[in-house]
Amino acid sequence: MLPIKEGDLALLTLYDKRGRPKKFLVTVKAGKSFHTHKGSLNLGELIGKNWGTVVKTNKGVPVEVHKPNLSDLIEKLGRGTQIIYPKDSGFILLKCGIRPGSKVVEIGTGSGAMTLVLATFLGDSKLVTYDISERSLRVAKANLDKLGIKNVEFKHRDAKQGIDERDLDCVIMDVPDPWEFLEVIRSSLKDGGVFVAFVPSCEQIPKTVLKAREVGFGLIEVHEILDREFEANEKRTRPMPRMIAHTGFIIIGRKLEGVRSS
Amino acid sequence: MLPIKEGDLALLTLYDKRGRPKKFLVTVKAGKSFHTHKGSLNLGELIGKNWGTVVKTNKGVPVEVHKPNLSDLIEKLGRGTQIIYPKDSGFILLKCGIRPGSKVVEIGTGSGAMTLVLATFLGDSKLVTYDISERSLRVAKANLDKLGIKNVEFKHRDAKQGIDERDLDCVIMDVPDPWEFLEVIRSSLKDGGVFVAFVPSCEQIPKTVLKAREVGFGLIEVHEILDREFEANEKRTRPMPRMIAHTGFIIIGRKLEGVRSS
Amino acid sequence: MLPIKEGDLALLTLYDKRGRPKKFLVTVKAGKSFHTHKGSLNLGELIGKNWGTVVKTNKGVPVEVHKPNLSDLIEKLGRGTQIIYPKDSGFILLKCGIRPGSKVVEIGTGSGAMTLVLATFLGDSKLVTYDISERSLRVAKANLDKLGIKNVEFKHRDAKQGIDERDLDCVIMDVPDPWEFLEVIRSSLKDGGVFVAFVPSCEQIPKTVLKAREVGFGLIEVHEILDREFEANEKRTRPMPRMIAHTGFIIIGRKLEGVRSS
Amino acid sequence: MLPIKEGDLALLTLYDKRGRPKKFLVTVKAGKSFHTHKGSLNLGELIGKNWGTVVKTNKGVPVEVHKPNLSDLIEKLGRGTQIIYPKDSGFILLKCGIRPGSKVVEIGTGSGAMTLVLATFLGDSKLVTYDISERSLRVAKANLDKLGIKNVEFKHRDAKQGIDERDLDCVIMDVPDPWEFLEVIRSSLKDGGVFVAFVPSCEQIPKTVLKAREVGFGLIEVHEILDREFEANEKRTRPMPRMIAHTGFIIIGRKLEGVRSS
Repeated sequence: MLPIKEGDLALLTLYDKRGRPKKFLVTVKAGKSFHTHKGSLNLGELIGKNWGTVVKTNKGVPVEVHKPNLSDLIEKLGRGTQIIYPKDSGFILLKCGIRPGSKVVEIGTGSGAMTLVLATFLGDSKLVTYDISERSLRVAKANLDKLGIKNVEFKHRDAKQGIDERDLDCVIMDVPDPWEFLEVIRSSLKDGGVFVAFVPSCEQIPKTVLKAREVGFGLIEVHEILDREFEANEKRTRPMPRMIAHTGFIIIGRKLEGVRSS
Repeated sequence: MLPIKEGDLALLTLYDKRGRPKKFLVTVKAGKSFHTHKGSLNLGELIGKNWGTVVKTNKGVPVEVHKPNLSDLIEKLGRGTQIIYPKDSGFILLKCGIRPGSKVVEIGTGSGAMTLVLATFLGDSKLVTYDISERSLRVAKANLDKLGIKNVEFKHRDAKQGIDERDLDCVIMDVPDPWEFLEVIRSSLKDGGVFVAFVPSCEQIPKTVLKAREVGFGLIEVHEILDREFEANEKRTRPMPRMIAHTGFIIIGRKLEGVRSS
Repeated sequence: MLPIKEGDLALLTLYDKRGRPKKFLVTVKAGKSFHTHKGSLNLGELIGKNWGTVVKTNKGVPVEVHKPNLSDLIEKLGRGTQIIYPKDSGFILLKCGIRPGSKVVEIGTGSGAMTLVLATFLGDSKLVTYDISERSLRVAKANLDKLGIKNVEFKHRDAKQGIDERDLDCVIMDVPDPWEFLEVIRSSLKDGGVFVAFVPSCEQIPKTVLKAREVGFGLIEVHEILDREFEANEKRTRPMPRMIAHTGFIIIGRKLEGVRSS
Repeated sequence: MLPIKEGDLALLTLYDKRGRPKKFLVTVKAGKSFHTHKGSLNLGELIGKNWGTVVKTNKGVPVEVHKPNLSDLIEKLGRGTQIIYPKDSGFILLKCGIRPGSKVVEIGTGSGAMTLVLATFLGDSKLVTYDISERSLRVAKANLDKLGIKNVEFKHRDAKQGIDERDLDCVIMDVPDPWEFLEVIRSSLKDGGVFVAFVPSCEQIPKTVLKAREVGFGLIEVHEILDREFEANEKRTRPMPRMIAHTGFIIIGRKLEGVRSS
């Protein structure tokens, strides 16, 4: 891999007394400093070093310099807005049969975290993403541009009114009222196509599931994915005392030719 | 999508009285029958129908006919052997930054479930997979051939003795003693490369984590991913009464240039 | 402790190949046999032995003979009917401040599992339990008689119409529509008294919570308790592969003098 | 119930914008004030009011005044030290068959949280608790005195050297090395008696389980209890975004007459 260069994003990692990592995503730039209560770091000095290098702050505390991956970038996008976490987006990819070359539409661009995941795994295939908020689209587009993602088309429209694409493999919704979109989606999916809705509240589950059945989806499943992190060091192995206990429920259904006789 | 044809795998879905799906993966073949206590189905009659069609058994019970996706196929591979489930493999993909084009090696082919996932998401890039069991490699190869997966190279070798590949983005281990492989892996990873170990038991966690630190990995994390399924119907929404409560722990670390000063 | 005698309940425990216990609750009786695929046991031979003895089946397989405790008995009551499990009833006891001497009413006797727990921990204090099903009351009464529980009064009535008791510390509901009982309950609780509702479905949560606020309860909490069992033996420690993933949600509120201004 | 009087502990509850409770345990005292960023409260004014009253801060924000129960008091004891939470102590009570009248010894008094629970549910029966730290015993004793708990005997001794009590129903350990106490405990338990160990780390599980088998305990179980809290209001029902994800593992075993033949 090429060494670290001006303008790269870097994931700086320090450890607290108990060995737990604190991660910071920074842009490498000559003349810029990174400050923490464990000392400061001249970011320009990283230029030319190899990824994975360990440098020290002016207080002598070691800092690991990692190249951020997809998962790290998603966490960054998440600052201050609802995102779809890796535990959820990874499961969605697998359960929906998304793969390089799939034809996928996203409804509800939001911060662009799921957009980033989908665009990455679709390979050369284009992703279309809809949002009713021009501001969301602008922010997401700026985020993805910065990361060099090019295979995304942003559409500013209320997708309830219809979407342009046809013969889709999958449509992914991150909207408050997914049930309102299901008829539009069904007519845009190919035979056997899949819809996904990501919703935070219990009340949204039956509304989505019952509407999906009504308009002609089968094999409807509802999942909640939990990520339990452990600490492991010289002294002990144990689950972390606190965790993110809820992000959202994942509802998935597959297009039927007709309506299922209950 | 093309209609159903002779030789296709099909995911037949029936529902029990409470609306819960029972899924069966079958090969469509003229003259072959599918039998269940809710009646039988002539599989030849599916040929030429569209995916998502709903047919009836000779007892009049509706059966949904879905095209199996990656996740369905993995479950099939899992019959009778330990597999890496979609909740785990999806998370691994995301956390390790694997994407189309990544250079990845798998150690411990096993049933080929993770092999299938990796090969799918690497796109045109080749996956190399090592196993010490000739039988495992033969079974996995047969499974992947049947599914039309071509970008996998199988190597029959004890990877502890060394692997041929260099400048790898990621090495994934599904072996009982991942700590024994970490030095070999480190020298095969590029700067900033990632290792993953998937292990079922608590005892394997500290052994892997401490060895990883010792040989020069940083940002080591341990995760356990849980998939909680819900039922939702006209009557109620609630978590399923039973769940798969444990598959394995996921240990991830990133290559450091040197060894982390603790 | 007195040795085993005719008529005692005994918890026989055998282990499978992987060391997992299989438990059987039997009545000790001269001339009666216990049969399993690991051989049979003459139950009369247990008489006069000490609790904790290990005997062998006629096939030579060891069987541990334990005195059943509250938790074991609850599991037995649970055969074929919905029960409140130890993980839930223990939490309810603690969170509601129930203790020996508390004045408690139960609405929804059901199988009598929670009745048994409450009666046990109230000590000399009397528990009153209401059910609309005469059959449920009869079965529960028979169960508790057999266990020597004497401090329970059974009332066959729809408690929505009112209950006789006043100045109660706590009222516990295991009914499908707890919100319908909240006004009756509030007027029967002393200042600062507590209600608990145990409900299986998500839809029942907001109905109960919002009604409770409306009629004058504060500090309303909703909990779900999960019990994750581990196996640990010479070979490994790990969570059990399967678990009971859902029993019910526990809703708790405390009586306010007036109605909370939202 | 008697109205609020000078010297009572009171649980003040305020709600944030999203309706989530913030709880404060205070001592009611004339002339004393309670301060929060939502205004202050003259605690003397609570005297003579009924439990469950709703008063207002000088900024007009409503405050619920609840009588603290066992569970609230435990949380208070927990400030700054490891405690056994209600989810855990309730389960322990039930699984071990502890009830009013049981003969119980605690090893590892710590903050006295479990001591408080045990003493409460034993009714008139006396609890004996051992600790090697004189300071712990002093603090715990002061805490329990304040709460009016009288049925506890504190012993300053390393219980590994032996305990005085015999024919016990149950011994509960909250110590770092429970396996070191198992032989002493076994000889103090009556036939069929039960030990419990509460441990935070994975490594402690097999050490305790294997030693317990060796010295003559059967039906050994390992549990982890999780408490998932939900929020429910006019807008939505959903699991709380964050939770306490780990407190400890509960290991339970029952005394065998002899040693189990594996």
